[in-house]
Amino acid sequence: MLRSASHAPKIDDVVAAHAALRARRPLVQCLTNTVSTNFMANVLLAAGAAPAMVDNPEEAALFAGIADGVLVNLGTPTAAQVASMRLAAEAAEQAGKPWVLDPIGAGGLPWRGGIAAELLRFHPTIIRGNASEVIGLAGLGGGARGVDSSADPSAAVGPAVDLLAHAATVSASGPVDHVVGEIDGLGVALVRIAGGSPLLPRVTATGCALGALAAAYAAVAPDPLTGLVAAHVHYSVAAEIAEEAASGPGSFAAAFLDALDGVDEAALRDRARIEDAIPVPR
Amino acid sequence: MLRSASHAPKIDDVVAAHAALRARRPLVQCLTNTVSTNFMANVLLAAGAAPAMVDNPEEAALFAGIADGVLVNLGTPTAAQVASMRLAAEAAEQAGKPWVLDPIGAGGLPWRGGIAAELLRFHPTIIRGNASEVIGLAGLGGGARGVDSSADPSAAVGPAVDLLAHAATVSASGPVDHVVGEIDGLGVALVRIAGGSPLLPRVTATGCALGALAAAYAAVAPDPLTGLVAAHVHYSVAAEIAEEAASGPGSFAAAFLDALDGVDEAALRDRARIEDAIPVPR
Amino acid sequence: MLRSASHAPKIDDVVAAHAALRARRPLVQCLTNTVSTNFMANVLLAAGAAPAMVDNPEEAALFAGIADGVLVNLGTPTAAQVASMRLAAEAAEQAGKPWVLDPIGAGGLPWRGGIAAELLRFHPTIIRGNASEVIGLAGLGGGARGVDSSADPSAAVGPAVDLLAHAATVSASGPVDHVVGEIDGLGVALVRIAGGSPLLPRVTATGCALGALAAAYAAVAPDPLTGLVAAHVHYSVAAEIAEEAASGPGSFAAAFLDALDGVDEAALRDRARIEDAIPVPR
Repeated sequence: MLRSASHAPKIDDVVAAHAALRARRPLVQCLTNTVSTNFMANVLLAAGAAPAMVDNPEEAALFAGIADGVLVNLGTPTAAQVASMRLAAEAAEQAGKPWVLDPIGAGGLPWRGGIAAELLRFHPTIIRGNASEVIGLAGLGGGARGVDSSADPSAAVGPAVDLLAHAATVSASGPVDHVVGEIDGLGVALVRIAGGSPLLPRVTATGCALGALAAAYAAVAPDPLTGLVAAHVHYSVAAEIAEEAASGPGSFAAAFLDALDGVDEAALRDRARIEDAIPVPR
Repeated sequence: MLRSASHAPKIDDVVAAHAALRARRPLVQCLTNTVSTNFMANVLLAAGAAPAMVDNPEEAALFAGIADGVLVNLGTPTAAQVASMRLAAEAAEQAGKPWVLDPIGAGGLPWRGGIAAELLRFHPTIIRGNASEVIGLAGLGGGARGVDSSADPSAAVGPAVDLLAHAATVSASGPVDHVVGEIDGLGVALVRIAGGSPLLPRVTATGCALGALAAAYAAVAPDPLTGLVAAHVHYSVAAEIAEEAASGPGSFAAAFLDALDGVDEAALRDRARIEDAIPVPR
Repeated sequence: MLRSASHAPKIDDVVAAHAALRARRPLVQCLTNTVSTNFMANVLLAAGAAPAMVDNPEEAALFAGIADGVLVNLGTPTAAQVASMRLAAEAAEQAGKPWVLDPIGAGGLPWRGGIAAELLRFHPTIIRGNASEVIGLAGLGGGARGVDSSADPSAAVGPAVDLLAHAATVSASGPVDHVVGEIDGLGVALVRIAGGSPLLPRVTATGCALGALAAAYAAVAPDPLTGLVAAHVHYSVAAEIAEEAASGPGSFAAAFLDALDGVDEAALRDRARIEDAIPVPR
């Protein structure tokens, strides 16, 4: 899945990917942390995909062959779940299914950092994290504090480019999301997506669930970069809409699910804030 | 608990079961998947029951003797949890406590399919699933895709009747819920419950939580079929009310909990849509 | 952390602790039950703290050194998680980090009761439970039914005082919260906090999440008793505000997160109901 995009993703590509998501309803296998399971499944359902949280070693590989995409999230790994992650990632790679690695805490915790690094050999289609996690995974030491990002996404662009040795595309979430990947004729490029809401990081597992949505979009988009950009845009637009209806983080969480469901072509065209792709040095 | 109903369940029986639930507040032990735990506990609390998610092998059997009913849901089984399920199901049968089997994914995944089939020897009081799962468990192959139902509930009636060899009553959830069980003087019969909301399957774990509510109702109803019908009716009426207050799946989930709490005798009598029982061939 | 309070906590102390929470945003490591993870993380985020649910044996001790406080909740223990609890509690004690023990079900279930009793040797800063759990942990047999409290908090004062042999401060949640601890010059004292909402126990994991919030406050308050009182007051005030916006338990849960976020000095001063400390016999 180390496939390049044929051109820089624009709003028309996002609209097309969104239409494909709604039409094909991709099934995403999620091997994820205990905090995120319920919200992640609801995010996938609201956005237009289908969730299945199959993460035991007995079924993980088999199910990766059934699913349309796989998410591996290192938030609360157990020994058994890590075994499942290896099996699912390997099976996904072999079956040509897109899979997403969310390396939560990889920078600050050696045990899971080692697991994250090891999983790179199965070539994740997408790596999505916050800036600290992307920096940490790239081996630069990110100083992540818990699961929050203490680094600015722009500081993660270099490390994200380094990670393109293993993954087709990499993003760091933040007030402005930073996505890097290879584009035919342009080389390695950065696409920035603005928008969203300051309430988004006030609700737990919103970042985790974006990783799952990225797996869903990667299953229906023409290339991983377009899929990842589309997931970020759908998320940002929905967060912006939800904020208008919210009185705080609790009402925001419910309104965000409503908005993920309600986002249509008009909302995407009206609110998407995708910057033009910028070449970045490899 | 392979007890027949003395007559076809009607609205008066549902109202009486609902009053008994509120008066007795049955304690339901839930051995369930990681996606559903929080929502399931909130559904039980809102409806008028009490939850306890005791699912470790050290305590599962002991707690089945303390609880008023037990739910076993195969959504995200682990080896340890499966050991607990066997212990809890056996203890529930021996203590004469009602227990519900929700065979998620039993049709499409051989490992858990084998577990589900093995658990039948402890004679679940109730089997509740979507149509694909009921068909899959009955051994006909259901083609379940993830945890969603791709089959119509009416196609599950024959398989559900087959499962009456193991369970007192069986239901397949869908736009119209199909419940089968034995009624004195009528033999095996089908009771259909309409209503509900298209938003219900857009929220994860709503089907799972219905299984837990069925265990609660089975603990207070005169027979398993009446309990299962009452759980479906309480759910359908609450979903219909919630839809009126919802702007999408996120606000629906909160409104659904409010409505489960708010449903009273008047709402049940006004909105319940229970069809007359129809005899079906064994 | 068996530190006495220098004086009985008053509203000014609560306001100061609240300001410190918002300024310092303490990181709380939560080793908790599967029902509570998502809601607990959202409660911490909404109140102004940061959550991290690191509960595997490989990382539990290391992370207790990174975190500002630790919560150990016995709601759904597994063998691996119990090993992690021992490691995290020991590491917290050695590092002088405050840690909270929530002994769910300790009174009624021997296996976890033994674990809870064993964890006392690491001297929890705070023990928080409902009355039955506090009574059960103190060895008097509480008759807990599931995770609910069937005893009145006032009946837990004696047992709570007994537990001060192991912990700096102990609280029993209920319609009126009862907090005991040692105050310089006054000796062992009881502080009662009224307010809250009858909807609070209708939402699962609200008690669990209060334990996590207590760990957050203990990390920023001058002493454990003041921290525990501040957590109870923040919670009660937010619940009272949320009830005014709620139509039932579902909308209450969202409004409660909004209110935890929205509570400011004015709301605390306007609504807090802290009774004067009363000396109690040791």
